[in-house]
Amino acid sequence: MTKREKAELLLRLQQRGSSLLLPNAWDAASARLFEEAGFSALGTTSAGIAFSYGYPDGERMKREEMLQVIARIVSVVQVPVSADIEAGYGPSARDVADTVQGVIEAGAVGINLEDNTGNSTHPLFPLEAQVERIAAAREVADHAGLPLVINARTDTYLAQVGEGEARLEETIQRANAYIKAGADSIFVPLLLDPEIIQILVREIPVPLNLLSLPGGPSAPELFQLGVARISIGHNAMLSTMGLVRTIANELHEQGTYETMSRYFYGFAESAALFSVS
Amino acid sequence: MTKREKAELLLRLQQRGSSLLLPNAWDAASARLFEEAGFSALGTTSAGIAFSYGYPDGERMKREEMLQVIARIVSVVQVPVSADIEAGYGPSARDVADTVQGVIEAGAVGINLEDNTGNSTHPLFPLEAQVERIAAAREVADHAGLPLVINARTDTYLAQVGEGEARLEETIQRANAYIKAGADSIFVPLLLDPEIIQILVREIPVPLNLLSLPGGPSAPELFQLGVARISIGHNAMLSTMGLVRTIANELHEQGTYETMSRYFYGFAESAALFSVS
Repeated sequence: MTKREKAELLLRLQQRGSSLLLPNAWDAASARLFEEAGFSALGTTSAGIAFSYGYPDGERMKREEMLQVIARIVSVVQVPVSADIEAGYGPSARDVADTVQGVIEAGAVGINLEDNTGNSTHPLFPLEAQVERIAAAREVADHAGLPLVINARTDTYLAQVGEGEARLEETIQRANAYIKAGADSIFVPLLLDPEIIQILVREIPVPLNLLSLPGGPSAPELFQLGVARISIGHNAMLSTMGLVRTIANELHEQGTYETMSRYFYGFAESAALFSVS
Repeated sequence: MTKREKAELLLRLQQRGSSLLLPNAWDAASARLFEEAGFSALGTTSAGIAFSYGYPDGERMKREEMLQVIARIVSVVQVPVSADIEAGYGPSARDVADTVQGVIEAGAVGINLEDNTGNSTHPLFPLEAQVERIAAAREVADHAGLPLVINARTDTYLAQVGEGEARLEETIQRANAYIKAGADSIFVPLLLDPEIIQILVREIPVPLNLLSLPGGPSAPELFQLGVARISIGHNAMLSTMGLVRTIANELHEQGTYETMSRYFYGFAESAALFSVS
């Protein structure tokens, strides 16, 4: 598939009324494992990638490093990959444009772009600034002739901006402005209230993307509410980190390998998993 | 700690009669998690690193890429790191020297260097060639003024070279030649027979390193036999891959997150884990 075909496929997979489950990879191994399980498309997780490089979350990793991992993931799978580029690695529209140019060169055909500033006093970019930043991403994609799937993330719920009704209003207002600026879908992480989800599905004319969380509603339950796309963020990566902690504690305290034996991927199998690259 | 102090510490930790358990990291996250569990030193796993980059095992990764990961791992932990450099990224003594120079620059204070050619017809480098390769590694370290801990690996058991007594003879002969060439310890992966282990402990005057395997003798049992250093190779990485496969299958087939919830590392905790870098 060409990049254009992959972008078009991703757009079709996530259209309103469909149910796209998009696992998020943090390295080439997780990407291949998700592909092998049968997923039709993959996302990346910036937090998971940051952790695997030893950085905390939140654009502490350099843009170039992040793009290298994205390129590596794209290179080992056949399916379309959507890149989590946090808030675009810089506040300006120009920063976002540079990052999106890098993403397209890396071979990803979609992006997650968030309006989170990382600043707790002003957690979100002003609406106008974010609109400019999304428009800049769209312009770079248009210039490259690629129907890049722009999944615009608003952190109204994650950053708990405003109260109840006001937060919902702000979300709807931002979503519609982002769509006008060129977004193909809207991502609202940490929103899990079924009533509000149904209101958003009604008020936002493009596919709604939510983050699934261990302990929260299952993917079928979220699809039932009209959600078109579900991703898992850094949760699978955190799960492997929890496993490594348990393996490490057992090994250090008892010198045994019970936990390590519980899940296992055969060495011979792994050779087949990576022979495509 | 300076590099010299780290190298000296690693030498002390693995001396004959001690019991050094060395877990092998494949990325910065696993390295920090092992360090947090209390291990005094870490190894890297070339196979685990290759998998996380999407390559099969066996020097399919470029030397430079491998050195970057080693440097990243060294940069996030305080403890000494021993680098698994496979067969040195090239057959000649010069190749080994170049790789060891890179390892020292990356900040690792030990190496695993194997005599496996990757060629099934001639699985091991001729003794003389491997002696030259080890001597080249020692020379580079001496030139850098670093008491680099050279863990010379012989794959007589892994590659099943010769039968019974002949394999044991070959192992003892190689080990003693490698020590003369500058090795500080001898690593014999896939050797698990207690009788043979005891013979090797007797016949080899330096610390013996074995690979622990799920299903095999526990670390205390191996230490009891006189083994001084035990590492886990790619086994923890393969365990996380098995977990990701189970997570992926459940998510794809049922849209649920049971497996993902079983092990978990808190997001807030992860921020603390990586704040040192």
